[in-house]
Amino acid sequence: MAPLGKLAVVGVGLIGGSLALAARRAGAVTRIVGAGRSRANLDRARALGVIDADAPAAEAVRGADLVFLAMPVGQTADVLAEIAPHVGAETVITDAGSTKQDVVAAARAALGTRFARFVPGHPIAGAEQSGVTAARADLFDGKRTVLTPLAETDGAAAARVRELWRACGAEIREMGPETHDRIFAAVSHLPHVLAYVLVHDIAAHEGADELFDYAASGFRDFTRIASSDPEMWRDICIANRAALLAELDRYAGVLGEARAMVSARDGAGLSRLFDGARAARDRWLAGK
Amino acid sequence: MAPLGKLAVVGVGLIGGSLALAARRAGAVTRIVGAGRSRANLDRARALGVIDADAPAAEAVRGADLVFLAMPVGQTADVLAEIAPHVGAETVITDAGSTKQDVVAAARAALGTRFARFVPGHPIAGAEQSGVTAARADLFDGKRTVLTPLAETDGAAAARVRELWRACGAEIREMGPETHDRIFAAVSHLPHVLAYVLVHDIAAHEGADELFDYAASGFRDFTRIASSDPEMWRDICIANRAALLAELDRYAGVLGEARAMVSARDGAGLSRLFDGARAARDRWLAGK
Repeated sequence: MAPLGKLAVVGVGLIGGSLALAARRAGAVTRIVGAGRSRANLDRARALGVIDADAPAAEAVRGADLVFLAMPVGQTADVLAEIAPHVGAETVITDAGSTKQDVVAAARAALGTRFARFVPGHPIAGAEQSGVTAARADLFDGKRTVLTPLAETDGAAAARVRELWRACGAEIREMGPETHDRIFAAVSHLPHVLAYVLVHDIAAHEGADELFDYAASGFRDFTRIASSDPEMWRDICIANRAALLAELDRYAGVLGEARAMVSARDGAGLSRLFDGARAARDRWLAGK
Repeated sequence: MAPLGKLAVVGVGLIGGSLALAARRAGAVTRIVGAGRSRANLDRARALGVIDADAPAAEAVRGADLVFLAMPVGQTADVLAEIAPHVGAETVITDAGSTKQDVVAAARAALGTRFARFVPGHPIAGAEQSGVTAARADLFDGKRTVLTPLAETDGAAAARVRELWRACGAEIREMGPETHDRIFAAVSHLPHVLAYVLVHDIAAHEGADELFDYAASGFRDFTRIASSDPEMWRDICIANRAALLAELDRYAGVLGEARAMVSARDGAGLSRLFDGARAARDRWLAGK
């Protein structure tokens, strides 16, 4: 594709910074202007060459060919309201939010007729580190980006966003926002809550230091996602609460069944549960 | 220490096989005889040079200086009853069971006056692979082995076991069996159940294939322990059920609090929970 003349990245953290680095690596952009809340983070982003300049969001988006929103989803509505009056008629807007129905609703409310040039997206890549210093040009290589375009989404705008993500190394998948939110409630949002709750639970024990002292590699891997950005995950939980509550209730039900098996010394039941889980996980890994 | 003349390993899997390899690497043993349920696994253990010979457990322990029990804890009572008549008066017996109160009770019942030479142990090392092909001479290097000797445990027997573990690269920690079981219920047994339950839950969803298709690295790490040996974990859950049930109930309570916060859109509450968990985990990792 012809390089973007100007890319505006609002939220130059792990995801926004990595998109900037990957787009530059691909020669897919001429100039990148960043915006964000943290002066120190923007200074680092400039110093690292991730962005060419920074500006308040309203100014950063002016004249941009593409605007990439990469903040915690709880800020989406405010940022969209702030930039909407300054976005050009041809500017394409996309986002990296981990939830899609709320982002779509916020964009629809804020953008009016320009909503057709908003292409909702979610790159399935990340790490528990946050901030621009964690950004990497190869973060999206071989990873998927899910786009959830709507009936009213402009075809050329969606094509532009697909091209950018492909140039950044990602594979594109498309689905509706509801499907997206249902899937990620189960395989991403639920496990994050479970991991945060476990660490919180252990830390609140009397003698927690002794417990942590004996926690081993299994605990470390299980809880890795509990080192994820708390603000991002607070916003996800609230934005996707209906789907997440359904998953939490479902999980609590299965956990209750497992508890009953332990209590009843039901070895056959536990074997079925554990064997089935291991087999399902091994099938999943084999198919990756 | 003077090398052991004969080491009997009952259960030549990941742990038993690794102990054999590590003891040999250290020159801590002259001859290793294995016993176990799987003919094929014992043949592999001989072919790999992990053991010098195999024999039924009753025969393998005859004339052994040290017997190392490394089966799922649910088999401990039966194996001890089988070998008890054949164990010499000077033979030291130790184990690698992930639970200790049940193993101690089984040993006390089976060994009579020889219980004094039983030294309960638990190496804090492992992997989700099982069987002798997963065994490694360096599995215990820099890892801890917890010993839970009792008032009646013979000092020389305990010293012998400590020496063997140190020769195999492990650091020794000592505590009572109840303390052991309480600690590991929280930091090991509970997370294993949570991970198995999550994979089981996802696999039981309608459209599970699509869910797994979008599961990413966070899910992979969170569920790694759900690929652990199901029989071993069934036995652990039943053996340590009192402490595990207490942890499951405690966890379910905190999960219920998190659910209430999501439902009430309590961003401040979720922030406290997630921030606190991340901070606790980061402190733990920093101290490792």
